Amino acid sequence: MPSISNKGKLMPESPIRKLVPYAEIAKRNGNKVYHLNIGQPDIKTPEVAINAVKNIDIKVLEYSHSAGFESYRTKLSQYYRDHGLPIETEDIIITTGGSEALLFAMGSTMDVDDEIIIPEPFYANYNGFSIASGVKVVPVISTIDDGFALPPIAAFEKLITPKTKAILICNPGNPTGYLYSKEEIMQLAAIVKKHDLFLIADEVYREFIYDGEEHFSVMNVPGLEEHAIMIDSVSKRYSMCGARIGCIVSKNKAVMATAMKFAQARLSPPTFAQIASEAALETPQSYFDEVITEYKDRRDTLIAELQKIEGVKVASPKGAFYCIAQLPVDNADQFAQWLLESFDYNKETVMVAPAAGFYSTPNVGLNEVRLAYVLKKEDLIKSVAILKEALKAYKN
Amino acid sequence: MPSISNKGKLMPESPIRKLVPYAEIAKRNGNKVYHLNIGQPDIKTPEVAINAVKNIDIKVLEYSHSAGFESYRTKLSQYYRDHGLPIETEDIIITTGGSEALLFAMGSTMDVDDEIIIPEPFYANYNGFSIASGVKVVPVISTIDDGFALPPIAAFEKLITPKTKAILICNPGNPTGYLYSKEEIMQLAAIVKKHDLFLIADEVYREFIYDGEEHFSVMNVPGLEEHAIMIDSVSKRYSMCGARIGCIVSKNKAVMATAMKFAQARLSPPTFAQIASEAALETPQSYFDEVITEYKDRRDTLIAELQKIEGVKVASPKGAFYCIAQLPVDNADQFAQWLLESFDYNKETVMVAPAAGFYSTPNVGLNEVRLAYVLKKEDLIKSVAILKEALKAYKN
Ligand SMILES: Cc1ncc(COP(=O)(O)O)c(C=O)c1O
Ligand SMILES: Cc1ncc(COP(=O)(O)O)c(C=O)c1O
Repeated sequence: MPSISNKGKLMPESPIRKLVPYAEIAKRNGNKVYHLNIGQPDIKTPEVAINAVKNIDIKVLEYSHSAGFESYRTKLSQYYRDHGLPIETEDIIITTGGSEALLFAMGSTMDVDDEIIIPEPFYANYNGFSIASGVKVVPVISTIDDGFALPPIAAFEKLITPKTKAILICNPGNPTGYLYSKEEIMQLAAIVKKHDLFLIADEVYREFIYDGEEHFSVMNVPGLEEHAIMIDSVSKRYSMCGARIGCIVSKNKAVMATAMKFAQARLSPPTFAQIASEAALETPQSYFDEVITEYKDRRDTLIAELQKIEGVKVASPKGAFYCIAQLPVDNADQFAQWLLESFDYNKETVMVAPAAGFYSTPNVGLNEVRLAYVLKKEDLIKSVAILKEALKAYKN
Repeated sequence: MPSISNKGKLMPESPIRKLVPYAEIAKRNGNKVYHLNIGQPDIKTPEVAINAVKNIDIKVLEYSHSAGFESYRTKLSQYYRDHGLPIETEDIIITTGGSEALLFAMGSTMDVDDEIIIPEPFYANYNGFSIASGVKVVPVISTIDDGFALPPIAAFEKLITPKTKAILICNPGNPTGYLYSKEEIMQLAAIVKKHDLFLIADEVYREFIYDGEEHFSVMNVPGLEEHAIMIDSVSKRYSMCGARIGCIVSKNKAVMATAMKFAQARLSPPTFAQIASEAALETPQSYFDEVITEYKDRRDTLIAELQKIEGVKVASPKGAFYCIAQLPVDNADQFAQWLLESFDYNKETVMVAPAAGFYSTPNVGLNEVRLAYVLKKEDLIKSVAILKEALKAYKN
């Protein structure tokens, strides 16, 4: 029997999905499960996006341009400029989700055994994309005690080798909710310029910023044009994760020409979804105002409720819709499993994502979980109440 | 300035698209261009598929299951069983086009520097997917003189090394139109079993078979369950290339579990397109009957017209909608460029795909082009008339 690849053996299982079988046990036990584990928002997709697809008149559903509809790229560049990002049509390639943009960015800049430095904890699928690309992830640790701020520059420089090709950040961060300050971005810009690296910034949560803070994009750093690669997506912005539309953005012509070769090989991004995404650009500002107000409210609720539980430590997120919470347990993985398999509070329980899967350093974050506040406030309050009872009942 | 990856430098430009700038010159010169270069059918997408999307009632466009809708996989497995292929729901992962299925198949079975044997000429993007996966393509040559039949087993065995992990075939073939016989598939099955390899069969043109011949799938070979991986797509079957839906199919549990890890990393295939693809399964048989009749008619027309031109040699395709034609020119690439840049016949010209891009052996197929018969009959007749005049006018 032929055997699978070593690459395939190394590919991690999704930390979010590996508990799914236990969630099924919970349901079989008749318990309702609150899902704090996933990043699937419950927010309505703008009707203008859905309606665009409902109103199409297509006879032949053709491949689009490999870089995506030109009309969409042009309007999207205008969207960025309206938001202060100096991006032109030709700086954009539309991809099948931010996921594919990450793959293209890695493939265009890195070869097998090259190294990419990523502050951890990080979006778990960076591991998968790196393994698929044959690239080695070099984590630089950020801690809950510092609220997951950018590690000191010295910590990055210690890790840079001749194999280092890029630094990858997520801003604001999944799973931390941390928003890098302008100063932090400028520090990163200085390192990548000094060592001739790429700075890949996953900014898919750019619009989800609370407390009046401002997002500072890598596309806004003067002189960083040849180094900066931005990853974006419609998934969260318009709560249309199922569209599978994102983009890779750069002013570096060689990077874009190379990404375009990857794009041509897979032919085109999905057509229906591009129609929806182009239309989504017409979403009124009031939609975003409501969504941000809603998420801010949820965040405040979740954090306030968590802080009431003794022994729980939580870094207050400034963006995105996740937070990392440290729990008074030895092993959050076992605890999360137990929550589903063996616990209920009035026939209800919660599903959380053990945070260890968001670190690539072994044995770090073992007592942490990631919580997504993609549920309505009442459900978040109930969820934390369940968590509190569970922590009382749980024997490490 | 940081430099792009070597991988990126090696990624080939699409042989179909590299002449696009010359097509633009033709248009600027006021000439109409008949596109025989691309595999984008002009056939109507079944209305049942488009209507399913027009009639949706979606509030939140969510990620789907990473393997695709379960309802779709179940119905698709029934489709396969109705067509004599013993495939169950759990043997299928829905992918973003056959393109992604090819990437998953390579990633799940092969590591960097592993080798994959592919009869050439082959679908040009196999090169791109191999480079993206760090895999080495080892071509085994098939020739127009043999009508692109399977090369002798000895030719394969000579190429097998300890690094060989798989043989990849396209059946029926793009760009050759060749349909492998049951005997040829059985021969391949014997080699992969003897040498413990995977047999990856790209069967995206399975339904496009003429002259009453029958397609014989790798999924139909008894005892090949652990070796066979099938690649499929809705792109051509329903003329819905823009959907971006395909699948990887195998009975090998380790392969499917591994492909699933790649699938989870990219979250999910596109939701709108899955709705359309699931509905497309309701397409009445009459649609296919008409489409096949139409393509057969086009093929017969194209081949008959080509055979009337002196010095042109063409292998009559038994399936798909492409053929390779040998032209009385030294360099088909230059000829194709000249056709667009410097030639017209009553203000019309044709765009063809130089076949060298479908070979990975250098300097092979230099006088061959690939022609797609995705245009209506009258246009095919006109196109060949133009080609005939062009060949007269062209000085090598
Ligand atoms: C940080 C981050 N980047 C990228 C993605 C990929 O999203 P998509 O492929 O849906 O655009 C996600 C999805 O959750 C994410 O959280
Ligand atoms: C032989 C072959 N395989 C795979 C594909 C990929 O098609 P898709 O990704 O649209 O399913 C094509 C498209 O032309 C093809 O010709």
